[in-house]
Amino acid sequence: MQTVFNRIAIFGVGLIGGSFALALKKSGAVRQIVGVGRSRTSLETAQQLGIIDHIADSVEEAVAGSDLIMIAAPVAQTESILRAIVPFLNAKTIVTDAGSTKADVVLAARAALGNKIAQFVPAHPIAGRELNGPEAALTDLYVCKKVVITRLPENTNDDVAAVAWAWQQCGAIIHQLNPAQHDAVFAAVSHLPHLLAYALVDDVARKPHADTLFQYAASGFRDFTRIAGSSPEMWRDITLANRVAMLEELDSYTARLAILREHLVQADGAAIEDIYSNAQKARHNWISAIEAAEKQQREGGD
Amino acid sequence: MQTVFNRIAIFGVGLIGGSFALALKKSGAVRQIVGVGRSRTSLETAQQLGIIDHIADSVEEAVAGSDLIMIAAPVAQTESILRAIVPFLNAKTIVTDAGSTKADVVLAARAALGNKIAQFVPAHPIAGRELNGPEAALTDLYVCKKVVITRLPENTNDDVAAVAWAWQQCGAIIHQLNPAQHDAVFAAVSHLPHLLAYALVDDVARKPHADTLFQYAASGFRDFTRIAGSSPEMWRDITLANRVAMLEELDSYTARLAILREHLVQADGAAIEDIYSNAQKARHNWISAIEAAEKQQREGGD
Repeated sequence: MQTVFNRIAIFGVGLIGGSFALALKKSGAVRQIVGVGRSRTSLETAQQLGIIDHIADSVEEAVAGSDLIMIAAPVAQTESILRAIVPFLNAKTIVTDAGSTKADVVLAARAALGNKIAQFVPAHPIAGRELNGPEAALTDLYVCKKVVITRLPENTNDDVAAVAWAWQQCGAIIHQLNPAQHDAVFAAVSHLPHLLAYALVDDVARKPHADTLFQYAASGFRDFTRIAGSSPEMWRDITLANRVAMLEELDSYTARLAILREHLVQADGAAIEDIYSNAQKARHNWISAIEAAEKQQREGGD
Repeated sequence: MQTVFNRIAIFGVGLIGGSFALALKKSGAVRQIVGVGRSRTSLETAQQLGIIDHIADSVEEAVAGSDLIMIAAPVAQTESILRAIVPFLNAKTIVTDAGSTKADVVLAARAALGNKIAQFVPAHPIAGRELNGPEAALTDLYVCKKVVITRLPENTNDDVAAVAWAWQQCGAIIHQLNPAQHDAVFAAVSHLPHLLAYALVDDVARKPHADTLFQYAASGFRDFTRIAGSSPEMWRDITLANRVAMLEELDSYTARLAILREHLVQADGAAIEDIYSNAQKARHNWISAIEAAEKQQREGGD
């Protein structure tokens, strides 16, 4: 059983890092949380909101006395943050991250950490909102959400268990995948949908009669495009980091659209209904499975 | 000022027709509502739920004594329903519909009604849920929602005013467009997003590792695909009815995807972020405008 963390340093106290901090504090799993980041304003907001106890004046100060370091910044910053950390990294400190892509993060970590790579346990919490910054952080963001740990061959069981324990204190459920599996799965069910939603809003917004179109857009459009409210910088980084898997998913999807287009040209109602029905049934089964799992969790199963 | 309707006949007492009935009854705008439809089970459910007062045994019975007829069936059925109605249609009865496409509905109405076309006032309530059937009907489905009337040159002002009044009693806000404008607007902001959501779920569901993918799909995927839970039959009809405008929007969208694909191939982060940022800003402005309008409405403005 893990004892509580004495001090956790969080690089990036926005939605993801801030919610991690709030949940750990509430559960009593940590004595002190230190914030580090690019934006002094965000750090001060996080301190005022009780997300962090202290703003580190330097990377050295943040890293030296911490037993866990969480990197919750856009994924493209992972390598430079790790390079800044490594000179001050004690042998017993565990480093983890919350990035939405994993293969590139592991590459960055290997490049930055060298022979300290065993201390880095990569992870990805499957939770989010379309809002950013410390003001968007929620104590219960991770309750009943999955966290995927993509452990490295070098990781010790104790370090993986410590990271898993921290997330479990936030209410999350631990899964494990390897980095390549992880990236392929999330290209399909998360990264591509974000790109598609951004592309649709961008396409509508560029039309000469965009104002009229937005006037009549309703709840269907609102839900479909909710994820296009997400941070462009964060999603640019994810898109670039996972572009090989995303290209594969994008090509699969545009091939499906080309088939549907041909059905439209041919006015082939039966073929269109087949696709729509298959989608509706698959989604219905998926939602039913989620709801059954949630029910089981509420009733104390696992 | 419109006096209350003595009797309204509703063809199709599902989500749309049923919610119209519930709202009119609640507002006291109608004395009796009669249901007609393909499914006896749905009609009986609607009667049990208090949506309709009476199940018509024949089209003649439904039509003859009604002062308003609402067609709330999938749009492909509009012409056959109107052909069934026309022999029994009194000169003072107004016929309206709730179809999501308008150019095809107007064509169908002209073909079916002939010289009674002036009695048909086409309309489209911009409201929905991903659930179907009378059980899904809600009294407040149309509160603060837009209803677009695409009036015909032949319509009298009184008939248009009566249809508008009925929807206003449901809490809706009346807009007017011509049928072609209507179809172009909704191809972009509603019909294409439905096709895109169905296509994504279908694409995921057909992959050999679909079970793993669905296991990790989360709230972003859920919202993005919510509209793929809609009735496949209804959306097949809409897709076919509005396929010319939908093809135009689909081609515009796939051209946008092709541009994004090239940015991915080139790993052009700045270009990707431009598109994502443009979309995020446009969506933010749109949501802000909606919220301001809703606030004004709540405060009694218009």
